[in-house]
Amino acid sequence: MVTTKKTAIPKEFSDLLQSTALLHVATTGPDGEPQSNPVWFDWDGEHLHFSQTTTRQKYRNLHRDARLAGSIVDPKNPFRYLEIRGTVVEFRPDPEFAFISSMSAKYLNIPVYQGSKPGDEERVVVVVRPEHTTSMG
Amino acid sequence: MVTTKKTAIPKEFSDLLQSTALLHVATTGPDGEPQSNPVWFDWDGEHLHFSQTTTRQKYRNLHRDARLAGSIVDPKNPFRYLEIRGTVVEFRPDPEFAFISSMSAKYLNIPVYQGSKPGDEERVVVVVRPEHTTSMG
Repeated sequence: MVTTKKTAIPKEFSDLLQSTALLHVATTGPDGEPQSNPVWFDWDGEHLHFSQTTTRQKYRNLHRDARLAGSIVDPKNPFRYLEIRGTVVEFRPDPEFAFISSMSAKYLNIPVYQGSKPGDEERVVVVVRPEHTTSMG
Repeated sequence: MVTTKKTAIPKEFSDLLQSTALLHVATTGPDGEPQSNPVWFDWDGEHLHFSQTTTRQKYRNLHRDARLAGSIVDPKNPFRYLEIRGTVVEFRPDPEFAFISSMSAKYLNIPVYQGSKPGDEERVVVVVRPEHTTSMG
C-alpha cells in the first residue's frame, strides 16, 4: 500500500476519478461510529463532489464532523483502489437538480435525474477537499 | 433507504453476502477521522470475516475503536447495496493462512494465497458481529 501525505492525487490513479466506479463514503455517526455507503461522484481536478439530500443521515453526519473518506475500486481490476480522505468545504445548493442530473448523465446516460424532481426533496452538492490518499495496485 | 435496528441481515440482501463483491470497510483513524478501504470478506451466517495483517492501519484502528461499517454493492445492480455496521468481537490468529487462502479461493479460484507466505507477515481474521444494517434497492 502506498500512502501519500500530499493532497495531490497520484497520477497513476487519476483514471479512477474519471471512471463510473462508485465512491464508498465513510462518515462518522452521532455516537462516533463509522458509517459507509456508495455514491455517484464527480471530480473537477481539485474537489470531489457528490449529491446528498438534506434529510439523509450522511448530511447530518457531515455537519457534525466534516471529515470523510471515500474508496474507489477499479471496475476492471479489483486489486486496484484509491482512497481519498478529506474535508467538506461546502454544501452547495442544487435547487434545479443540475448536479444530480449531471450524475445521472455520467452514470446512466440519462441527462435528467429520474429519482425525484426539484421541490420533492432538497439536494446539495457535497464539495470535498482531498487531504490524504492511500492506494493499492 | 431501509434502515433496520435488528442485527438480522434482511433476507432480500443475503445474496450479497455470498457474492464476490468487495466489502468497503470504514474504520476510525487515530485522530477520529474516517478511513475506508475495500477487502475480501466471508459471511458464516452470523459474523463477517476479513483478513488483516497486524501492521496495517486498519488493524490498529480496530484495536482503538472496534466499531466499523462495511458497504457491499451488488455487482449486477449498482443501485442495490447493503451496509452492515458492527463491532469486532475477535482477532483470530491465522498462522497457516488458512483463512486468507480461503478468500483467495473464493475471489480468485486459487486455493493458496499468493500474496505472501506464512511467516512473511502476521495475519488475523477480523470477526465482526453485525449490529445494524441499512440497504437500498
